[in-house]
Amino acid sequence: MKWRSIRLSHWPSRSAIPNHNNPCQHTRRHNSTPRISTPNIATILTTEPTGDRQSIRVAGSVRTIRKQKHRSFLELGDGSTTHSLQAVLEPHQADGLGTGTSIEITGLWQPAPIGKEQKNELKVENIRILGRADAEKYPIQKKYHSAEYLRNLPHLRLRTPHNALLARMRSECDFCFAKYFRDRHFVRLQPPIITSSDCEGAGEVFTVSSNPPAASTKDDVAPLQDNDAAFFRDPKFLTVSSQLHLEAFVNEHQKVWTLSPTFRAERSDTPRHVSEFWMLEAEIRTESLQEVMDLVEDMIRSLTLHLYGSGFTEELIHVRRGSNPPDTIGDAYHSGLLDQRWQGLMRSSWPRITYRNAMKRLQDAIESKEVKFQYQPLWATGLQLEHEKYLAATVGNGSPVFVTDYPNEIKPFYMLPSTMKAEKLSEHKTVACFDLLLPGMCEVVGGSLREHRLQSLTQAMRDHGLNVSDESTLSVVKNADVSPSAEKGNLDWYVDLRRYGSVPHGGFGLGFDRLLGYLAGISNIKDVIPWPRYYGRCDC
Amino acid sequence: MKWRSIRLSHWPSRSAIPNHNNPCQHTRRHNSTPRISTPNIATILTTEPTGDRQSIRVAGSVRTIRKQKHRSFLELGDGSTTHSLQAVLEPHQADGLGTGTSIEITGLWQPAPIGKEQKNELKVENIRILGRADAEKYPIQKKYHSAEYLRNLPHLRLRTPHNALLARMRSECDFCFAKYFRDRHFVRLQPPIITSSDCEGAGEVFTVSSNPPAASTKDDVAPLQDNDAAFFRDPKFLTVSSQLHLEAFVNEHQKVWTLSPTFRAERSDTPRHVSEFWMLEAEIRTESLQEVMDLVEDMIRSLTLHLYGSGFTEELIHVRRGSNPPDTIGDAYHSGLLDQRWQGLMRSSWPRITYRNAMKRLQDAIESKEVKFQYQPLWATGLQLEHEKYLAATVGNGSPVFVTDYPNEIKPFYMLPSTMKAEKLSEHKTVACFDLLLPGMCEVVGGSLREHRLQSLTQAMRDHGLNVSDESTLSVVKNADVSPSAEKGNLDWYVDLRRYGSVPHGGFGLGFDRLLGYLAGISNIKDVIPWPRYYGRCDC
Repeated sequence: MKWRSIRLSHWPSRSAIPNHNNPCQHTRRHNSTPRISTPNIATILTTEPTGDRQSIRVAGSVRTIRKQKHRSFLELGDGSTTHSLQAVLEPHQADGLGTGTSIEITGLWQPAPIGKEQKNELKVENIRILGRADAEKYPIQKKYHSAEYLRNLPHLRLRTPHNALLARMRSECDFCFAKYFRDRHFVRLQPPIITSSDCEGAGEVFTVSSNPPAASTKDDVAPLQDNDAAFFRDPKFLTVSSQLHLEAFVNEHQKVWTLSPTFRAERSDTPRHVSEFWMLEAEIRTESLQEVMDLVEDMIRSLTLHLYGSGFTEELIHVRRGSNPPDTIGDAYHSGLLDQRWQGLMRSSWPRITYRNAMKRLQDAIESKEVKFQYQPLWATGLQLEHEKYLAATVGNGSPVFVTDYPNEIKPFYMLPSTMKAEKLSEHKTVACFDLLLPGMCEVVGGSLREHRLQSLTQAMRDHGLNVSDESTLSVVKNADVSPSAEKGNLDWYVDLRRYGSVPHGGFGLGFDRLLGYLAGISNIKDVIPWPRYYGRCDC
Repeated sequence: MKWRSIRLSHWPSRSAIPNHNNPCQHTRRHNSTPRISTPNIATILTTEPTGDRQSIRVAGSVRTIRKQKHRSFLELGDGSTTHSLQAVLEPHQADGLGTGTSIEITGLWQPAPIGKEQKNELKVENIRILGRADAEKYPIQKKYHSAEYLRNLPHLRLRTPHNALLARMRSECDFCFAKYFRDRHFVRLQPPIITSSDCEGAGEVFTVSSNPPAASTKDDVAPLQDNDAAFFRDPKFLTVSSQLHLEAFVNEHQKVWTLSPTFRAERSDTPRHVSEFWMLEAEIRTESLQEVMDLVEDMIRSLTLHLYGSGFTEELIHVRRGSNPPDTIGDAYHSGLLDQRWQGLMRSSWPRITYRNAMKRLQDAIESKEVKFQYQPLWATGLQLEHEKYLAATVGNGSPVFVTDYPNEIKPFYMLPSTMKAEKLSEHKTVACFDLLLPGMCEVVGGSLREHRLQSLTQAMRDHGLNVSDESTLSVVKNADVSPSAEKGNLDWYVDLRRYGSVPHGGFGLGFDRLLGYLAGISNIKDVIPWPRYYGRCDC
């Protein structure tokens, strides 16, 4: 009996099913299709055994094993599902197996005896041990492990059903966004990670330098005379946002986006901050802030609906129920919360409220003694977390809430003044921007229209204390071998975008990890990211 | 006459066409679909005018304008196509327009008079200037600009038709790979950029440090006492490869991949090297090196076939013809080369040759005086670029060539010994690895089976001078608040993957930018990357 033929006939992988809408599938014209498909456990569990004695082969790791006198019961798992496949073994077949052991089983996939929890089970014919694990020393035991404990083992916590599910969900979100934007003719960019500018002048940036020249093994390259920071001639940073670079593409491409890593050297340790995170950023040609918000709303709702329809909520709830092995990510989770969140995201027409009206609402709430805040809501100090939480809870009624048109003095230089009539008439000037607040989590998206007019931008930059040249970077290029971002001040190139054929545009940045945490019901972002980097920690 | 209704009826965006296979499209259940679609020039050019006088609105930038006495002719461009849309204006409508000006035109889309080069043209009714550009100062004129000149203006060269095409092609490659892997049940990962290990011990890494604590504005965070490198307690680097992190996921997920930024602080200035590039890496459970190569071959061929079918070759050739404005990226390009390359990639069954046989072939070629090399091909020194070029040209016959089973002494510690019988029997030991050589470009993919056995791995690490602990990182976690990658030696976590339930696996890394350059016929990788970072340069 040959395994390959059985596998191919009984377990078609998704890619084996003809898909005429697939633009990237020309494989079958050729005869070298890779033979890498092995049925994963998710596929097997959703397949009914046929009447025949049906042999299958499956690989995975032992989640638990119960050794009994006459037979043993093994829960086999892999990353494809939070559910386990139950295998029934003769006692001698269980030798050397323990939690964490990697094995390959061949056996009969058959209906389980009536009364069992699972519908089908695998009667083991043969077991091959791929990788042993000392069951006593294996760090992930069949018991409750705190999130803090697991955070110390990022390389192994990946193997818990919960973390494996999060990786799969992250992957699906990534693809879903990619498809969403491509369907709408966006161009996906890979913006630079090492940059010359620190975007918002926030200061909390990582600096990049190269190793000492001695480490170079190339003898055709002269070693540097001065210190190693000069690899790029002047100090360079890890990007804190790709917005400015994305803006440079809007002239040609109209609609662009990226999902790429972003860095902040923040020393604060909160459940919402890490030093390295992935940000989804988009810029579009538009004169309407509403249009930017429409895009954000539609994009997140599309994602949520897709994940909901794909069974991720079921798995998120299943994995929390404890089961085998008990597995939670130390979260104050209750069963209804997740459903509430998802329903809120799937509802249409998320409320939009101006900062001005939000302030009124907060003040009214204080006056009517509906709520007490630690911080007084004041026009010029922005919204505190407690204010955001109150607004998300009361304005949104479970849905996210857009707060728009913040005071210009608390926002970066690149934002366009408000375009709403009521805002334009007011004495306290505001800008055409928004934050999207999620109930319980708060800000997850921030966006604005960008100042596209040359004079207004340079004025705004000077008002914010930035150095702006009156000249195009072209004169630099003409006169010397220096980069447009160096001696002449590091944002002249950004001003150039307005000097030559500017267009009205706007965009936003979404904290991808925060959104994932919100969808997964995980309160600490460090537990959504496989290898989180934060103040004091950068493991592996 | 309302523009919106005309746009929607005449110019359906791709997303407006029902697509029942689209997993991420639930938008139409809701009424807040964003109204961000404007017909781009590619869409308009492929649409025949109807018999009616059909008004359209289109935005773009002026590529050139010819002002004549009775009428003016304007070539309008955007990033959607390398072709221009020709607009016909009354003389007074051309006021203030010059190369680089951003405009929005409303007009009649109608057949051009017989004898004209273009089939249809836009008779302008109204022009709105969105962003002026001083035509004389605008750095991208209607003339030849050298690649070196344009490299000094990364923020503006994006607007040349050639660079706009490259951005669009990069975007399509990204999506095509994403779809390819998802169809095959791969999980896409976002591996860490800041890492503790330098993977191959190459030494040419960038070091990351944070700004001085003074920059922190949070007063609830105590400033550090010692130097700022201590943000993560010990020195951290920008990743040189995500392979080791990907390997950690293989136990659960069987098939994983990533496309993410990678860094090398190499001081060499060659057309094939930059300091920041995107690498596509994958790891799969397998015991067969052939299977890894099958995957690489199928993946690249699928991509090429898709791009070929989508008209990218036509555009690449069109944009090189000069036309409007003349636009090349300073390349020794001849018209047949591109087609040769693409045909070679689309052929099936790329040749595979062992390093051992490749050596013989090189030596035979020298002996038969077929070729002269600057460097003698020697077993222990690896293949030089000239050797790779010869092999790619003679073995591949236009197709890429896999060279497999290199000597273990010139390869990293993590590679599995060769599995081929002939190799195992030989005195000169080799490892189960491959390089994929592209004709003219040379190495673009490298891969191997990974050493998955605990004892063999630790031995190999010691042989390579790496510090390996005999203990699991678990003891560290139990005993103190230190990370598994710090005091105990920074690769213990990687050894742990073999200590607990290891599985046979292999994988590869593909230089995404190099492949793109190969497909686009661009010899210097710096001209494929929008904002290239290399020794001495990091603009914007």
